[in-house]
Amino acid sequence: MNTPSALFVDLYELTMAQVYYDRGMTGDAVFELTVRELPKNWDYLIAAGLERALMFLETLRFSDEDLAHLQSLPQFDRRFIDQLREFRFSGEVWAPPEGTIVYPGEPLIQVMAPLPEAQIVETAMINQIAYPTLVASKAARAVDAAAGRPVIEFGGRRAHGSEAAIEASRATYIAGFEATSSVEAGRRYGIPTTGTMAHSFILAEDDEASAFEAFVSRYPATTLLVDTFDTATGVNNAIKIAKKYGQGSVGAIRLDSGDLRAEAWQARIKLDTTGLPDVRIVASGGLDEYQIAGLVEANAPIDVYACGTSIVAPPDASTLDSAYKIVEYDGRPVAKRSPGKPSIGHRKQVWRADDHDLVGRFGEPPSADAEALLRPMMVSGQRTTHGQETLELIRRRAGVARGPRRVLIDPSLID
Amino acid sequence: MNTPSALFVDLYELTMAQVYYDRGMTGDAVFELTVRELPKNWDYLIAAGLERALMFLETLRFSDEDLAHLQSLPQFDRRFIDQLREFRFSGEVWAPPEGTIVYPGEPLIQVMAPLPEAQIVETAMINQIAYPTLVASKAARAVDAAAGRPVIEFGGRRAHGSEAAIEASRATYIAGFEATSSVEAGRRYGIPTTGTMAHSFILAEDDEASAFEAFVSRYPATTLLVDTFDTATGVNNAIKIAKKYGQGSVGAIRLDSGDLRAEAWQARIKLDTTGLPDVRIVASGGLDEYQIAGLVEANAPIDVYACGTSIVAPPDASTLDSAYKIVEYDGRPVAKRSPGKPSIGHRKQVWRADDHDLVGRFGEPPSADAEALLRPMMVSGQRTTHGQETLELIRRRAGVARGPRRVLIDPSLID
Repeated sequence: MNTPSALFVDLYELTMAQVYYDRGMTGDAVFELTVRELPKNWDYLIAAGLERALMFLETLRFSDEDLAHLQSLPQFDRRFIDQLREFRFSGEVWAPPEGTIVYPGEPLIQVMAPLPEAQIVETAMINQIAYPTLVASKAARAVDAAAGRPVIEFGGRRAHGSEAAIEASRATYIAGFEATSSVEAGRRYGIPTTGTMAHSFILAEDDEASAFEAFVSRYPATTLLVDTFDTATGVNNAIKIAKKYGQGSVGAIRLDSGDLRAEAWQARIKLDTTGLPDVRIVASGGLDEYQIAGLVEANAPIDVYACGTSIVAPPDASTLDSAYKIVEYDGRPVAKRSPGKPSIGHRKQVWRADDHDLVGRFGEPPSADAEALLRPMMVSGQRTTHGQETLELIRRRAGVARGPRRVLIDPSLID
Repeated sequence: MNTPSALFVDLYELTMAQVYYDRGMTGDAVFELTVRELPKNWDYLIAAGLERALMFLETLRFSDEDLAHLQSLPQFDRRFIDQLREFRFSGEVWAPPEGTIVYPGEPLIQVMAPLPEAQIVETAMINQIAYPTLVASKAARAVDAAAGRPVIEFGGRRAHGSEAAIEASRATYIAGFEATSSVEAGRRYGIPTTGTMAHSFILAEDDEASAFEAFVSRYPATTLLVDTFDTATGVNNAIKIAKKYGQGSVGAIRLDSGDLRAEAWQARIKLDTTGLPDVRIVASGGLDEYQIAGLVEANAPIDVYACGTSIVAPPDASTLDSAYKIVEYDGRPVAKRSPGKPSIGHRKQVWRADDHDLVGRFGEPPSADAEALLRPMMVSGQRTTHGQETLELIRRRAGVARGPRRVLIDPSLID
């Protein structure tokens, strides 16, 4: 699993770090990554992306090539280059485990390290955590909307590059999706892979019935795509082939366009009346959680929902509004007061009680029933066992009842 | 430069390919990637991403590890695995060169290859081209809005992973951005890198004036971030330091919050009246092309615009509505007729004339003044010189007058 290179950094992090070293400002700093506001209509977030962030920190080294490039820039002197040659992330990281339900203002990651170390990793921390958290949270909304019906992901082509595609598959699986179409995500993360057929397959064959037969004779429980020419005819062709090849040959049909509720009903009735009640109906085609909820409410006989674009690059939230901010330096709390974008000082802990969360000071729990959400994921630059969980465990953690929650801020944080 | 692995494929592309091989359906196919519709208010697209797509095709090999994983899946037999072991992309690729202005319906890439080869690369082609094209097009809108003022990119943290971040920097540079904050993008693509300072730098020092001095004494022509506590005081502190260290010490101040026009005017007047007319003003903070246009129109004295989120993950267009569709197989045109999502058969060429484009048949130009937009980028699986251009050349190509255009479809394409 490749993590970003050590040069995956904004220039200013390095110029700041050089000044920190020059001035001996290597005291411990605490930085926290938090989401400022939820996208419209969202009630919660699902934390994701921590694993790659921790791996980045654990393996972060400036290679000779990295250093040669930095030396070619005007900003850096020999001494700093030598410091980077020895650079290791030596700090401590606390975070809610992946799959935890979290809310704005609650740290997604908390980095405690000598100031230059905590500063240099800023871009990578935001970049590696914000996107998986965005996708897991959006995907959870689709799972919630589907109300128990399986949802699968096939958005790889729509994601912003191949890394995004693969991490999106992982994030959707955490949120409760059943499978992905991505073979690489399946290999890397052990996610079940699934697939149907493309319109091109039918077009290359030209005759839809022959194309169906070619697939059904090759793969058991095939899913047939029925809308290339005319959906009603497509369903008829699928039924013909299912009859010819017998039970279990056709596992499902897929509808990818048109009025999905009407098409699904017409198909369901035909399938049932021709003795094929076990053939399932898969729906796709730009589906998001709102459309899924609408179809579920309208009682559309759809057994599986397949999502792509809306989940891997959510149109209603192209990013999460997040920030990685210093909250303590050398034992004192710090906060900025920029108009509209203030930050809150102090190293924090999130205390989860039955009916609310309290974002409070790190340390003793405010009450006996309060659970600390942030756990030690890394100590002295090494991952703890908390930071090395199986994907199945993470997925189970996310599979709790999900919804809005009252989040209180300890007033003593705001000096 | 890493390209995606051979397993960066949707499962169905491989199950379809296996059937193609089984049935001897290895005739030549033509697939085209086109954008169906522009995002709201957009007038044009800038083609980008081709280089990595071509490198993917040229180096595509199924490694032993790839094949071992495929063998572990239930779908694939020994014969197919052996075919993949020998798999090379042997086809031809035509495309508009990167940096070309293009419109919906005009192919961004055209792949001609034996059917299984053209099918297997579907996910990678869409994934590698659509996002850079999205970002280049969005970035060009910001450049247009800035009307000659430099625009710089520092969106790495907001992009969907590190690959997206680096490719976004390249795409913005193609569109006319002047620099990026990403050190890795600077190394990989030779893009000028730039940077200022973060709020954390000032907070760690606590005293803003000392923080400014630490930076100015270290780096010439520094940009000082003045809004951490109070912008008016920040500007005063910047002026004090600029006076102390003399001309050229402070290159610019950066405003990152508040009413940017008002803040810029107040800062400009102070700078000018204290004899610092050469200190420039950089504005940032969630800026998109609409806000830039508003500031430019309102005559805000802002010299440089810095953009992040709005460009690398555009809120108005989280993806491009694109499709990779088969248009010919074995010499005959093919098209699907799915409701609302039809495709147009025939291998195409885009003929650009003075006042319009014609999407027509591949072959002879319709008129003497028509320029063919699609060029041969790859022949027999090898890149041509067209497919290996410098980034500066690509950037110059994009730097033409950009705007809407009449696009005609040759009626003979629609049978």
